[in-house]
Amino acid sequence: MGPGPSDVHPRVLAAMARPTIGHLDPAFVGMMDELQELTRAAFRTRNEFTLPISAPGSAGMEACFANLVEPGDVVVVGRNGVFGERMRQNVERMGGSAVMVDAPWGRAIDPDDLRRALAARPEARLVAFVQAETSTGALSDARALCAIAREHDCLTIVDAVTGLGGVPLEVDDWQIDAVYSGSQKCLSCPPGLSPLSLSARAMARIRARTVPCRSWFLDVSLLAGYWQGGARRSYHHTAPVNALYGLHEALVMLVEEEGIEAAWARHRANHLALASGLTELGLELVVPEAERLAPLNTVAIPAGVDDASVRRHLLEDWGIEIGAGLGELAGRVWRIGLMGQSSSPRHVRVLLAALKSVLAD
Amino acid sequence: MGPGPSDVHPRVLAAMARPTIGHLDPAFVGMMDELQELTRAAFRTRNEFTLPISAPGSAGMEACFANLVEPGDVVVVGRNGVFGERMRQNVERMGGSAVMVDAPWGRAIDPDDLRRALAARPEARLVAFVQAETSTGALSDARALCAIAREHDCLTIVDAVTGLGGVPLEVDDWQIDAVYSGSQKCLSCPPGLSPLSLSARAMARIRARTVPCRSWFLDVSLLAGYWQGGARRSYHHTAPVNALYGLHEALVMLVEEEGIEAAWARHRANHLALASGLTELGLELVVPEAERLAPLNTVAIPAGVDDASVRRHLLEDWGIEIGAGLGELAGRVWRIGLMGQSSSPRHVRVLLAALKSVLAD
Repeated sequence: MGPGPSDVHPRVLAAMARPTIGHLDPAFVGMMDELQELTRAAFRTRNEFTLPISAPGSAGMEACFANLVEPGDVVVVGRNGVFGERMRQNVERMGGSAVMVDAPWGRAIDPDDLRRALAARPEARLVAFVQAETSTGALSDARALCAIAREHDCLTIVDAVTGLGGVPLEVDDWQIDAVYSGSQKCLSCPPGLSPLSLSARAMARIRARTVPCRSWFLDVSLLAGYWQGGARRSYHHTAPVNALYGLHEALVMLVEEEGIEAAWARHRANHLALASGLTELGLELVVPEAERLAPLNTVAIPAGVDDASVRRHLLEDWGIEIGAGLGELAGRVWRIGLMGQSSSPRHVRVLLAALKSVLAD
Repeated sequence: MGPGPSDVHPRVLAAMARPTIGHLDPAFVGMMDELQELTRAAFRTRNEFTLPISAPGSAGMEACFANLVEPGDVVVVGRNGVFGERMRQNVERMGGSAVMVDAPWGRAIDPDDLRRALAARPEARLVAFVQAETSTGALSDARALCAIAREHDCLTIVDAVTGLGGVPLEVDDWQIDAVYSGSQKCLSCPPGLSPLSLSARAMARIRARTVPCRSWFLDVSLLAGYWQGGARRSYHHTAPVNALYGLHEALVMLVEEEGIEAAWARHRANHLALASGLTELGLELVVPEAERLAPLNTVAIPAGVDDASVRRHLLEDWGIEIGAGLGELAGRVWRIGLMGQSSSPRHVRVLLAALKSVLAD
């Protein structure tokens, strides 16, 4: 119940243990096609380029910046936690120049701040921000921010690592151009894969690049040749066969069995139950109510309470992992995840009982 | 029995299905330390920076070039197949300039050719080549090539994707500076991880960089902070927990139970049995005897035989996958892997019986 990995369903673990077959085997290639369709359904998109990157979410982030940023590009980046700062570093490593739109840690990016930044820097070509800040538990309004970006003729890169499957995310309706996630949050897979989707606008910008992408491993044109080459599928890298079995099973459970909207509602209901229970224990959530991210709940550590000791007792005596604070919030908060299989009334109940007991000791 | 993934032992598959725990959990961190020791034993090195990259072998290759090449650097690259060419592309994407040392497909890199190239380009800072060319089955003499590179004061990058665990590889004795492999060849893990080791000389060169590494995800200084930070371990990316369980189990079997030298001998014995059986069937190996790579055997397709039909019959009627030719060798050869768990007398016996039957039809 930390900031991920979340609990993994036994069906997904069993899928991970299926015999490894070749990454060019016809049976595997058929599963790859299904996986792309399931990933589109989760992202609510018809984008052709929609597939899992063969590496964790931070590689999904890098894939977006490596393909969409050219040296000299100006990129407006929202920063309200660790992952917005990581975006800035990605922009600069790709030779771009980052213009920061800051918000306090624990708050959403303010759409008016983005509007002002874009008015001041009309040469900007891209807007990037984190929908669901895993380091703080703040949810930014991706729909509003993307609409502003489009008014200024910018493409958008959206981090939905903790968003996908846990909060509403409508890639096509909101006209998001590049979005990535991680397998180990609300999808409840083991970590190691990063679902990624790129719009036709993003693909056109990538095709028009004047210098090649700085990464061979993450080059979208090469990835498309392997995932989407049909009968003329070309070898790029060796896909992580067993990890993809797991993601396929998890997406079948999420998209085909539960339904993505039902999953959003479940995450919200369990979040509300947790928030109410925490309040009863006299604890305070850090993020204002309207900006709270259902899958990740950031709780202020009460004065006089020892951070590490509480987390250790939860882990050793109750078998529950919660997350420490990161960056500015280190030592000041706990991060309680209700993600994927870990978003259930039972998880809420046990966590509240455990926390009550440990805090009373 | 293609060019990888190889068969995975049920113990490794079972390890993949263990419950996912947190990537910062004390129990997991203990396993990471063991994994580094096991990886050092497999590479025959005491290099401190020795760990699996959280992505397939092509990301391991990119990690070496992204960290060791600075814009403007001259890199001498051996090219005798697909992966040497991929190295060239990596050099150029990192802003370096590649000087190619070519050998025919199916042959080793000639040490004299490397010597001449280095004499002609004394400004070269790096030499890169593939020890075990998976696209052709040729084994280059890594010891000799690295010695020549050091005479010219160059660091070395060695691709041991199909070499590690299958043929002798002595990272410390041969003074290799950067070496990477893949989990899915002679280690017999599912694909998705790339063991990597960097010498103290390589680390010093990386620390002396004047421009940052172009990749955030593969930046060695950030990776070291997570894998080797000890009590002050810092978060970088979320490690692929279950894939690492699998690699740990596979390395325990290889390094602690069988022994790495015994594994080399096993790969060689099964290769010799296969080569002899293929000769009896009237088939020819493409690579001259002294340059053959035991884990990957490249066979010329006899005149009049339909490549795809033979491979399809092997897969459908016998449950055996062998590899097609790549690049220059496409349509001209089959690639038969005897890697890791797939290097056994039973595999040799069944493959020879199957091939004899299918070719007689």
